[in-house]
Amino acid sequence: MLEDKNPHRTQLSELGEFKLIEHLTQNFSITQKSTIKGIGDDAAVLSFKNKQIVITTDLLVEGVHFDLSYVPLKHLGYKAVIVNLSDVYAMNAIAKQITVSIAVSNRFPVEALEELYAGIETAAKIYNIDVVGGDTTSSTSGLIISVTAIGEVEEGNEVLRSGAKPNDLLVVTGDVGGAYMGLQVLEREKEVFKVNPNNQPDLSMYAYIVERQLKPEARKDIVELLEKLEVKPTSMIDISDGLSSEIIHLCKQSNVGVALYENKIPLDPQVISTCEEFDIDSTTIALNGGEDYELLMTISQEDHPKIKGNPNLTVIGYITDQNNGMYLVTRAEQKIPIIAKGWNALTS
Amino acid sequence: MLEDKNPHRTQLSELGEFKLIEHLTQNFSITQKSTIKGIGDDAAVLSFKNKQIVITTDLLVEGVHFDLSYVPLKHLGYKAVIVNLSDVYAMNAIAKQITVSIAVSNRFPVEALEELYAGIETAAKIYNIDVVGGDTTSSTSGLIISVTAIGEVEEGNEVLRSGAKPNDLLVVTGDVGGAYMGLQVLEREKEVFKVNPNNQPDLSMYAYIVERQLKPEARKDIVELLEKLEVKPTSMIDISDGLSSEIIHLCKQSNVGVALYENKIPLDPQVISTCEEFDIDSTTIALNGGEDYELLMTISQEDHPKIKGNPNLTVIGYITDQNNGMYLVTRAEQKIPIIAKGWNALTS
Repeated sequence: MLEDKNPHRTQLSELGEFKLIEHLTQNFSITQKSTIKGIGDDAAVLSFKNKQIVITTDLLVEGVHFDLSYVPLKHLGYKAVIVNLSDVYAMNAIAKQITVSIAVSNRFPVEALEELYAGIETAAKIYNIDVVGGDTTSSTSGLIISVTAIGEVEEGNEVLRSGAKPNDLLVVTGDVGGAYMGLQVLEREKEVFKVNPNNQPDLSMYAYIVERQLKPEARKDIVELLEKLEVKPTSMIDISDGLSSEIIHLCKQSNVGVALYENKIPLDPQVISTCEEFDIDSTTIALNGGEDYELLMTISQEDHPKIKGNPNLTVIGYITDQNNGMYLVTRAEQKIPIIAKGWNALTS
Repeated sequence: MLEDKNPHRTQLSELGEFKLIEHLTQNFSITQKSTIKGIGDDAAVLSFKNKQIVITTDLLVEGVHFDLSYVPLKHLGYKAVIVNLSDVYAMNAIAKQITVSIAVSNRFPVEALEELYAGIETAAKIYNIDVVGGDTTSSTSGLIISVTAIGEVEEGNEVLRSGAKPNDLLVVTGDVGGAYMGLQVLEREKEVFKVNPNNQPDLSMYAYIVERQLKPEARKDIVELLEKLEVKPTSMIDISDGLSSEIIHLCKQSNVGVALYENKIPLDPQVISTCEEFDIDSTTIALNGGEDYELLMTISQEDHPKIKGNPNLTVIGYITDQNNGMYLVTRAEQKIPIIAKGWNALTS
């Protein structure tokens, strides 16, 4: 909704590929012991001694994953890093390095990419990671961002999706549904803006959910908390596609069933009020919303005392035998099968 | 130039994102000891014990890096892997894993992506690497491929761009200029095809250079050869943007100058004859052509006896003091400054 009023626009071709990378990454310093050589050679060199590494990658495509009419480039850069770090933390690992590649059309001036990289730099500083490589090229249309994240984990400390056992507790961090409702608010404001470009929206009453959409955080703190509490989850996954979709992944890969309690699902009051305003069922949003980047895990019953009462961790159900199936137990005590309606980047 | 005559076209949306990844990667098996967990979790888990790792990433964009009117998808998948492996070998490391992300528009049926992944699988088998992750999403236009490669190298065995010293020999593997001339032939045939779609081109007399363009190989064999010969180059880089551009990178990062001998640059006879046919100077092509994926290195004079006469390695010049500058010494004994005219993905 904000026009770029910056009068200074440097064409990408003025710099060329090598100078552009150099220019965009000049502020990126190496802070991690495991980074031996960062940007500037054919490849980065990393050393993790006896630790295992985890590696994950995500592609963000303009018009599919983000809409630049309301996503500031700095936030986009930040979010592109976060979505990858979230996958690293979901392995119970600590992120250490990322590589960032972008394909960009000529409609973006250098100053726009500087904004994008400022967001990447901010995320790197806050999450204590090094940017060690990448690629910058032109695209025939729009902006594409590809991030790969590398993390480290002691051998045997990694948590896969496949370890859930019957009677384990199903636990979620934070609250869910906020990012999706934030998107609904932004989409509505975009429509208003089309009709009246002079309208300056007041989004203050939606501050939390809009921030959940535009500038999500990854739960590094949870990996640290679990270590402190001496809890190793039996399985873990990050919530990018929606709670129900991720629960199904965990159950299928662990060959178990689940009972999920509707009244236990943590919702922020702003999610509830905005759902009422939009006349949408908040449980539907919590189950299918996506992009929350919280962690979903299962923990052994015997670890329950260690997490009980922790405001970051909510028990929302328990694991059952696979034959029992995957069910949502509603407030009215009805059992409804859990179905994945998660956001699908290939059909949306 | 070849129409897809396959009558069976499965729409991407019929499968959905998760099933598509599953479907495309179902033949990919894990063969590397260092791969603990491959595709199917939030991240892959890798273990390299005391070895260092190298990591590199590249983005290939339709209409910028490849033209599907004459690049078969299987070759494209193969090449997308090769360009990354080449960077790993240029560090004197051995590639072990890759991740592959693609963004693809709806005009591609599932069968087209199967072709692409068949090429990726072939490269993985030949180069002995595991495909351990990736992302599949839709794009608003065209095909984008992002590959990240991971390799391992004993601590201290990595070769950077920055280690060249005066009096070192400048050495290149294989021959150069072929990939560029192959592209010229393919571009010409594309124009012929536009005028007469029934014309079936006979490319047999250009077989070597067309293959250099469509199905390049990465020089894993050179890393193995150097180990066998007990030669550790003082610096190394892969030739993706053209010999002159890479020589400048090596010299700038090593703070040295260079004397390059025109008459020493290795050219395949097919490059020479095709340059004559196109009326282009073959040295210009050798210097600026790009996409050869050979290795350029500097080695200490005392290692010369070890490489002398090896058909894979050609001494093309020597390193000088930085003050002497970077020069091409022509057949006529003229000294001409080396300038980067390498292919620039941001302006072409």
